Amino acid sequence: MNVSIINIGDELLIGQVVNTNAAAMSKMLLAAGMNVIETMVVGDERDAIMSAIRRQMGHSDAVLVTGGLGPTKDDVTKKVLCEFFGSRMVENEMALQNVKRLFESRGYELTPVNRQQAWVPECCEVLNNDLGTAPCMWFGNGEWGTENGERGTERGERGTENGERGTENGERRGENVLVSLPGVPFEMEWLMRNRVIPKLKEHFKVGAIITKNILVQGIGESFLSDLIEPWELALPENIKLAYLPSAGLTKLRLTAVAGTMQDEPALHEQVASLLPGLYSIAGKYIVGEDCETLAELVHKRLIDMDKTLATAESCTGGSIASHLTAHAGASHYFKGGVVAYSNEVKEAQLGVRHETLVAHGAVSEETVREMVEGVRKRMDTDYAIATTGVAGPDGGTPEKPVGTVWIAVASREKTVAKLLQFGGNRRQQNIDRSVNQAYAMLMRMMRNEE
Amino acid sequence: MNVSIINIGDELLIGQVVNTNAAAMSKMLLAAGMNVIETMVVGDERDAIMSAIRRQMGHSDAVLVTGGLGPTKDDVTKKVLCEFFGSRMVENEMALQNVKRLFESRGYELTPVNRQQAWVPECCEVLNNDLGTAPCMWFGNGEWGTENGERGTERGERGTENGERGTENGERRGENVLVSLPGVPFEMEWLMRNRVIPKLKEHFKVGAIITKNILVQGIGESFLSDLIEPWELALPENIKLAYLPSAGLTKLRLTAVAGTMQDEPALHEQVASLLPGLYSIAGKYIVGEDCETLAELVHKRLIDMDKTLATAESCTGGSIASHLTAHAGASHYFKGGVVAYSNEVKEAQLGVRHETLVAHGAVSEETVREMVEGVRKRMDTDYAIATTGVAGPDGGTPEKPVGTVWIAVASREKTVAKLLQFGGNRRQQNIDRSVNQAYAMLMRMMRNEE
Repeated sequence: MNVSIINIGDELLIGQVVNTNAAAMSKMLLAAGMNVIETMVVGDERDAIMSAIRRQMGHSDAVLVTGGLGPTKDDVTKKVLCEFFGSRMVENEMALQNVKRLFESRGYELTPVNRQQAWVPECCEVLNNDLGTAPCMWFGNGEWGTENGERGTERGERGTENGERGTENGERRGENVLVSLPGVPFEMEWLMRNRVIPKLKEHFKVGAIITKNILVQGIGESFLSDLIEPWELALPENIKLAYLPSAGLTKLRLTAVAGTMQDEPALHEQVASLLPGLYSIAGKYIVGEDCETLAELVHKRLIDMDKTLATAESCTGGSIASHLTAHAGASHYFKGGVVAYSNEVKEAQLGVRHETLVAHGAVSEETVREMVEGVRKRMDTDYAIATTGVAGPDGGTPEKPVGTVWIAVASREKTVAKLLQFGGNRRQQNIDRSVNQAYAMLMRMMRNEE
Repeated sequence: MNVSIINIGDELLIGQVVNTNAAAMSKMLLAAGMNVIETMVVGDERDAIMSAIRRQMGHSDAVLVTGGLGPTKDDVTKKVLCEFFGSRMVENEMALQNVKRLFESRGYELTPVNRQQAWVPECCEVLNNDLGTAPCMWFGNGEWGTENGERGTERGERGTENGERGTENGERRGENVLVSLPGVPFEMEWLMRNRVIPKLKEHFKVGAIITKNILVQGIGESFLSDLIEPWELALPENIKLAYLPSAGLTKLRLTAVAGTMQDEPALHEQVASLLPGLYSIAGKYIVGEDCETLAELVHKRLIDMDKTLATAESCTGGSIASHLTAHAGASHYFKGGVVAYSNEVKEAQLGVRHETLVAHGAVSEETVREMVEGVRKRMDTDYAIATTGVAGPDGGTPEKPVGTVWIAVASREKTVAKLLQFGGNRRQQNIDRSVNQAYAMLMRMMRNEE
């Protein structure tokens, strides 16, 4: 089943806002067993929107549209959809009750402008948006190709243009659907999860599908691919493997699609039965499962183990702490951290000895060990992480070029330090790789100490 | 002059990687006076790429394509372009020298697979990619519509499909260009800046254009709009104003386009002459100019003033430090910070008194003042920032609901603290707003003390 996405909004088109909606929607659709074939961004402009809808309705089973649903004159999506489907605008009772409920709960008067949010094309089905006043609209009546003479002709022409798809086009008439969602990310995500994807699955009778993430660290993507090739080649036909590399980490994603007689529990069982084979070849590089990032993995593991953590960051500048504390519940295990950018702070706040800094420099095994042990003792935690290095693009020396980073992790029993030499002078990349390396080292230490 | 963007890559289509290239390219094009009308993402697949190119070449003056230029079998962009333009693949001498130079500088042998990077369609002009082996290709010979019978027919059909644009389509033949760039963001950005935009400006004779950012904080977008309306209405016709809001901050962007007799210096003078009017109405909300973010503004200001900074973060969890240290040169002013998540760390590392925490709680004016003064004194800096609050989604109480945040800034002379009450329980949004509020408070303090 093929899906296209159209994200509408001048702010996306001019690059003021990075379009995260397309990626978020694609991930959710893929995880539900649907195939995204194209995504587009157009501005809040009638002709551009109309042209995009025509293109996508011509080659997709489902077209998902976000944005342009606000009550201001900039927002034209509803009007264009009404025109496209040859419908007329009506006030929808369910949408009106939803708008009233939200205004009441916020203690505001409902203004005429905001009441307009409840007006939708008559031919659509409204899916209730619990989080906002913009309606989510499902157009599945299949009449868009025939209601309007002008459009009918255009479809005919498109049929000709795509000669090889002429028949398909004809068959699809009346079967494909369009769903319009608000562009506000948290409303869009809630609606996708709770309204749109369940309805799409039912409408298109999409079978069961599950995915499993395995986080691999400490081996390059191509070496990993060579290493696990025998295992990969022996995977059952209904299971696909994807390599998703980023900043020194590779996420392996297994996607299992149901055949006949298979439901979700059976798929989970099938995938579980394949993992021992992977662990027996590549176990030492696997740092965890079922998370999107290493920060999430560390976060969950520390909560599960009921252990505490402190951080002492130099070159990573607070990123290790901020990625962990981005997750709700971090206060269960994260007591605090020191961003020790200057040598004085390394000495005063972490207890790194002045002589160590003079003799070995800030970027050295001796310093990183004193940092990690200092912060762990001072904050009295079970574990600690420390980083010190040259993130670049400047500041390198012949002995310690840009990309030289020392990382250490410590428990109450021991300290492990590691030297990394990243071969590039891109600051953010060096920071991101250091952060992932640090999380992976901590995961390994925690696993060995369980 | 209209531009379209096509970003090619399975990793973008499936949502593994958020497509930041489209936004980065749009921003650069807009800043150069070009108008982006549509952006698309398609996978590494011949038919999808061909269909996207046809669509965009049918309605844009310039089509910029990224991705799919690697040496592996997944990468098909070059082949599709060769077919589209009815050309043949040849080894390009300049591209070959570039590949050789890069391999030599890294100390690697040039393999046959990598030598393929120097093969390009004969009809293109290679723009040298100083940072990578993938070539940047400029297709401006205008022969794509006539060289190949099959394509000729398809164009005809498109002409019919877009009845109203038939003539335009015909006129455009031979005038529009296509540029293919690598998808790696730092190579793409370097090529855009140094090769593609200068060449597009020359080719399409784009006039001078300048932009100016003014960062406004402490007033909502709609109130700001009402406040500066008289000034906005009086702007000269060649100057446009955009409101770019995010996390409690509004960026006003003035774009000035040259008329006859105007060059860049004249435009700068014209914009400068308008600013006193804006400051006289809204000066107290303006925190700075000529930066993209408040972190960048604080970073530059501290370097200019040769002053030092320390941070004490609770609810922002290291974000204030990490956004500053993302900029090269942060070590000139940033001595360090404490992420004081637990009360013990607030006491031990910052010197917050136990009695203060017991009497007023961690989220209180008394605590935030002791945090900011504690970190400033302990790290001996000119300025300091502190935050403590309830980021959510849980952890709120009737007196201190989610979104309650105290922020303080301190200099050697004084401390200013402020209570914020964000009305939402979205954790990341509450963190981002707190970070921006903290930077803005520091900017105001620095300005008053200059």
